[in-house]
Amino acid sequence: MPDPAPKPFSFPLRVYWEDTDAGGIVFYANYLKYFERARTEWLRSLGHEQERLRVETGVMFVVTDTAVSYRSPARLDDLLDVTVHVKHAGLAQMTIAQQAWRSNAQGKTLLAQGTIRIACVNAGTFRPQRVPISITSSLNKNNE
Amino acid sequence: MPDPAPKPFSFPLRVYWEDTDAGGIVFYANYLKYFERARTEWLRSLGHEQERLRVETGVMFVVTDTAVSYRSPARLDDLLDVTVHVKHAGLAQMTIAQQAWRSNAQGKTLLAQGTIRIACVNAGTFRPQRVPISITSSLNKNNE
Amino acid sequence: MPDPAPKPFSFPLRVYWEDTDAGGIVFYANYLKYFERARTEWLRSLGHEQERLRVETGVMFVVTDTAVSYRSPARLDDLLDVTVHVKHAGLAQMTIAQQAWRSNAQGKTLLAQGTIRIACVNAGTFRPQRVPISITSSLNKNNE
Amino acid sequence: MPDPAPKPFSFPLRVYWEDTDAGGIVFYANYLKYFERARTEWLRSLGHEQERLRVETGVMFVVTDTAVSYRSPARLDDLLDVTVHVKHAGLAQMTIAQQAWRSNAQGKTLLAQGTIRIACVNAGTFRPQRVPISITSSLNKNNE
Repeated sequence: MPDPAPKPFSFPLRVYWEDTDAGGIVFYANYLKYFERARTEWLRSLGHEQERLRVETGVMFVVTDTAVSYRSPARLDDLLDVTVHVKHAGLAQMTIAQQAWRSNAQGKTLLAQGTIRIACVNAGTFRPQRVPISITSSLNKNNE
Repeated sequence: MPDPAPKPFSFPLRVYWEDTDAGGIVFYANYLKYFERARTEWLRSLGHEQERLRVETGVMFVVTDTAVSYRSPARLDDLLDVTVHVKHAGLAQMTIAQQAWRSNAQGKTLLAQGTIRIACVNAGTFRPQRVPISITSSLNKNNE
Repeated sequence: MPDPAPKPFSFPLRVYWEDTDAGGIVFYANYLKYFERARTEWLRSLGHEQERLRVETGVMFVVTDTAVSYRSPARLDDLLDVTVHVKHAGLAQMTIAQQAWRSNAQGKTLLAQGTIRIACVNAGTFRPQRVPISITSSLNKNNE
Repeated sequence: MPDPAPKPFSFPLRVYWEDTDAGGIVFYANYLKYFERARTEWLRSLGHEQERLRVETGVMFVVTDTAVSYRSPARLDDLLDVTVHVKHAGLAQMTIAQQAWRSNAQGKTLLAQGTIRIACVNAGTFRPQRVPISITSSLNKNNE
């Protein structure tokens, strides 16, 4: 019998004053920050630190495309879970699907979801580079 | 002979330290802020202030969808121009196309472009509302 | 024999891309955000949520004065600890001393320290209010 | 008869959604950003661009101390003026006094004021450096 689909990586984070706007809710642009924190922790969970990667290999990841749909507002003190799911991993880029959820006594609510495209580049010239083999291989292991 | 296409609204802004990240370039999430500043100034150029709108009519605009493509990095001290073009104006929502450009001695460079979908909502309940007639009519005048 | 001085409240947080600037380090203004996150979690550890406080009592805390000294730069991926120590608790305001530290293989480094003065105000009028008794009493318990 | 005191440098800026928080007002940490924008434009008015300075001389300015007092809240759409006044210019550091004002039909209101201490450092090592002579001399000219 096949294994059930693996649970996507999920990262918890809290909404602070800095995240909100005068509408009383999380400022929509901040979901891009939340998604990025989750991707960073997902990479860390696979053994990769981006600052070390840059220093050791001279490559870094840059975001080339973002598409986000904002479904329901989050408010101060809300506790969110942000998921990371690799949709496509290419030689020099990756496409990641992400969602932000709130779970509380009223149930589970999808707040925002999006697709983030990331390219691997030379940290000095911003020219495309192959994703380091160490990362590619840990992605493959993670998907087995 | 028909008029040439009208020039889109354009808003100039400067890149400061607060906008950059450790890659030495503008942090990609900040283009959503730049686009928002330009939309705010475009509405103001049509005679509408959002804070007054909220107080007087109880409605506000919320962003429901953003799709942005990041083409070329901007750096500290760069002077950008951000354009606003209404792609679609509905009863309770609008779709806006926006671009961020840098013009300098090396020529004109497209840095980022995107599509922002905005909904008109009740400022208390976040339920959809019709776009106030004062705004609809100024959009129509602007497009004639 | 008297108890040893109690350990100050400490909150861990990670440095992400959003926190850095083109100097390659954490943008100094962000330490105010870090300090605020730690104060929020300190209040939560005492049983107080600010959003609930505002809804239930109509009061909120506003920052009236900040003094911060930046000692050593933090970088992407650094893991920090931010401390909270109540220097003075008055009827309608509090003064909090805070520090941000980095602990790693090279030892423990003080990155920034500051003093934050907070006033309790009516959330609608911004007029000074007495700190709710529930908070005052939990501060006293915490200091016993 | 001596000249009257020179008018301090003043930089206008607008409050956008990104600047506000759930209290309905400008998030206090953002005054550090406003002060920085004004200092950057003040340096530019004297002929100095920081990015060019870093590339050409290898030095940059870092903020070492900030003390800010928040007097009155600013709101969405407010138009502010931020002033810059050099209190002290040393060999490797400067102390700048700054204020943020709002002028509207109700008169002129002081929103925040602060003192920012800035050090000149090597952009790679963060070690103290003398302020470039080109800047020192333009400060002196400006104060004559």
